[in-house]
Amino acid sequence: MHPFDSDIGVTESSPHRFDATISGRWNGLGSGPLGGYVLAVGVRAMEEEMTHPDPLSVSAIFMRQTQEGEVQIATETMRHGSRLGNCEARLHQHGRETLRILATFTDLDKSQGRVLLLNEAPPLTPPDDSLEPFPVGGAPALEIAEHIEYRLPEPIGWYEGAPAGKSCVHFWMRFREPRMYDAPALALFADAAAPIVFELGETESKTLDMSLHLRSRPAEGWLACRVSTRHIARGFHEEDFEIWDSRGMLVAQSRQLAVLPRAVLPDGPASEPDRSGLER
Amino acid sequence: MHPFDSDIGVTESSPHRFDATISGRWNGLGSGPLGGYVLAVGVRAMEEEMTHPDPLSVSAIFMRQTQEGEVQIATETMRHGSRLGNCEARLHQHGRETLRILATFTDLDKSQGRVLLLNEAPPLTPPDDSLEPFPVGGAPALEIAEHIEYRLPEPIGWYEGAPAGKSCVHFWMRFREPRMYDAPALALFADAAAPIVFELGETESKTLDMSLHLRSRPAEGWLACRVSTRHIARGFHEEDFEIWDSRGMLVAQSRQLAVLPRAVLPDGPASEPDRSGLER
Repeated sequence: MHPFDSDIGVTESSPHRFDATISGRWNGLGSGPLGGYVLAVGVRAMEEEMTHPDPLSVSAIFMRQTQEGEVQIATETMRHGSRLGNCEARLHQHGRETLRILATFTDLDKSQGRVLLLNEAPPLTPPDDSLEPFPVGGAPALEIAEHIEYRLPEPIGWYEGAPAGKSCVHFWMRFREPRMYDAPALALFADAAAPIVFELGETESKTLDMSLHLRSRPAEGWLACRVSTRHIARGFHEEDFEIWDSRGMLVAQSRQLAVLPRAVLPDGPASEPDRSGLER
Repeated sequence: MHPFDSDIGVTESSPHRFDATISGRWNGLGSGPLGGYVLAVGVRAMEEEMTHPDPLSVSAIFMRQTQEGEVQIATETMRHGSRLGNCEARLHQHGRETLRILATFTDLDKSQGRVLLLNEAPPLTPPDDSLEPFPVGGAPALEIAEHIEYRLPEPIGWYEGAPAGKSCVHFWMRFREPRMYDAPALALFADAAAPIVFELGETESKTLDMSLHLRSRPAEGWLACRVSTRHIARGFHEEDFEIWDSRGMLVAQSRQLAVLPRAVLPDGPASEPDRSGLER
């Protein structure tokens, strides 16, 4: 079994109640299990709850860090329509809720209509001509890199000790062991990059919420990713993520709101906006 | 009392339970009450539930159209922390849930840190030099225009019968009767424009969910707005909305996922992507 499948497996303990075990294989650098991985486990339980196959839209509030170990998930069908259904899930660990999710499900095969893209996949050199920043065994503190392969056009500034001053980066991702990209996988991938604000000199960023839209079922192959932020203010920033598949289709789009934990100055004056980095 | 205040008023009927009356003053063209207005009523109840003053992040699922008339709102404090709190609200009408909301609250006055904007307010001619598409009494079918004033640099293509083929438009908005812009007002304004896909030839679009981030408390005056979409596929499109205040600060940022109700072709083939409109 693919490690991701064993790590997102859920067991129904009673109607609308599921048990799962959060693995330590999907930890980010210096963090516990990635929020996107924990979300994937919640989405997996929601897929069991719902009859529509595709979690079109997923909104999550990360209430507390979920740790490795057992979790319980409660699911609720909020509404069941012929085209769309809504679901809520609550994930608990040690008796405390760590994650709440709202989702809208549909069957993408039954929904067509025109495709109009006013944006395109990030321009990237082919994966084979790109850098591999985390070869197997090369980043022991970054568990996730043992299971996700990254390729980039240039070195990661902050990782090399010199933040690049960029607010948008492009890169490739895929599972090291091939596996289809379903909704849980896209939830993981959409959170499997370091916060873009690290390239702007920040050293810590904590996700508060995430909305994830699955726009098409992905084809096999490398995923081309674009992560960006455009507004940092009052200790909060958004983090936008796009995932494009090998056919050049947008398959997932997400936005996180994240907090810079150091930016707490209870009595400080408001800063004047810094527009020096404005890209015109 | 300002009409918006009387129309978003909530009365606590028992702990964590509120009654409200949805007014007919905030209807869009040919629709019932705007989703953003109904969301404002829900947010108003959440403000009563929470001690932190600012709804930093609001995620809503629109399950059914809410009609004019009485509604009941149930609120729940999911988590109460010193810096952040989480809340859920469920809005019912005639015994059926129509809207569910998750929110993260904070006190923006206690959160500072640098302000870095890599984007700026939409370039607009001053309101006094702009068109007023809906003068008072000039658009009787558009109730909302009796209470919100719009100014635009050029006529609205679809409204004049000729969709402009644009995926992004800029315009000004404000209350006709001055009132402060709080979180409920921003929830209303972030939904108070026609779907941008109308300028791309679509004639119907229904919001499924909306995530709204309040990034700063707005100053008085006109609000400069940018609404855009970049990806239409399989009958779904995102709708991104930015609201900038008179100081040039981003005050609200939202994303909706919306469905094109006509795009249901159960057995039709998938369309090839149309990139003819790609803006390079």
